[in-house]
Amino acid sequence: MPARSLTPGPRDERGVLAARILAAAREAFAETGWAGTTIRAVARAADVDPALVYHYFGSKEGLLDAATNPPQRWLESVAKTWTTPVPELGTALVRLMLNAWADDEIGPVLRSVLQTAAHEPSTREKLRRIVEGSLMGVSQLGEDERDRLTRSGLISSQIMGLAMMRYVWKIEPVASMSDDEVVTAVAPNLQQYIEGEIR
Amino acid sequence: MPARSLTPGPRDERGVLAARILAAAREAFAETGWAGTTIRAVARAADVDPALVYHYFGSKEGLLDAATNPPQRWLESVAKTWTTPVPELGTALVRLMLNAWADDEIGPVLRSVLQTAAHEPSTREKLRRIVEGSLMGVSQLGEDERDRLTRSGLISSQIMGLAMMRYVWKIEPVASMSDDEVVTAVAPNLQQYIEGEIR
Repeated sequence: MPARSLTPGPRDERGVLAARILAAAREAFAETGWAGTTIRAVARAADVDPALVYHYFGSKEGLLDAATNPPQRWLESVAKTWTTPVPELGTALVRLMLNAWADDEIGPVLRSVLQTAAHEPSTREKLRRIVEGSLMGVSQLGEDERDRLTRSGLISSQIMGLAMMRYVWKIEPVASMSDDEVVTAVAPNLQQYIEGEIR
Repeated sequence: MPARSLTPGPRDERGVLAARILAAAREAFAETGWAGTTIRAVARAADVDPALVYHYFGSKEGLLDAATNPPQRWLESVAKTWTTPVPELGTALVRLMLNAWADDEIGPVLRSVLQTAAHEPSTREKLRRIVEGSLMGVSQLGEDERDRLTRSGLISSQIMGLAMMRYVWKIEPVASMSDDEVVTAVAPNLQQYIEGEIR
């Protein structure tokens, strides 16, 4: 069995060490970029031997891939959110984003993907797949395929921009608005993309 | 006169070389990050001697700063846009973004700022200053200071997210919508942030 296909459980020692390595890798890739990140530095930050990083993840490519993979339960919660009845969908999508970023496991992955995708082509490609496949792929909006994808893409543009402003760039007052304030302000605009005139 | 305060005109030789260096620097900082970028590599990409980069920009910090400074005429066009009568302001702000990204001089700077701000703290701070000072600072929206900044921040969140989707991540169909389609779809939502109920 190749090392890269391992999916360590969260409670055994292997899982604990892998999680620590991945947390350090997310930080490193996001802050110093692909070129500036070394397995050695990640291992040091995670307080493990570099050989263990190679053993678990195979290579720097494998480490980046694992570090930026969104948890399965998040992809499932995205898919479930799209089944919300249309009149409540705008609110549900804002809550989905707020809850994801507040989640100890999901938030750091999303942050890492957004920060790394800005300058790392393979992560940008992964972000594209996440957005097209999960955020846009399962919606049942619009009159035809083009209309559906346009509406989902516009929804993503608002959600992604809000996430950048609030969590990555931390620009006030958006960064410190309460969750309820964000829902009240943004949900009507998502609702407009969901069922309003857009052309 | 310190080298870093030079602002070479676009037509003399110094201006031509400086512009070539800055274009190469934008590419390098955006694609390989702060840590992965060297003066030597930028000089090679710009086909100049590394000593000239130091002579013009003083240091890697000075080069990053110059490479991510938005042109004055863009800041002026942002300020002017905010004086648009309220009923047309949503449309004017979408057009401002579309025109900026289509501009040969402004587009590459904006791309570089967004890509580099994701992982480079000093550029993130500059982005924060641009957004708070220029995009949010001159608006006259809302009932009080908090309301004004909240509305401007929400507008920025939509514009920034649209720019990321369309120009940085290039996610379809948002990336290939015509300018007019973008205006039709997005301007009403900006208008909602400008004068609608947001709390």
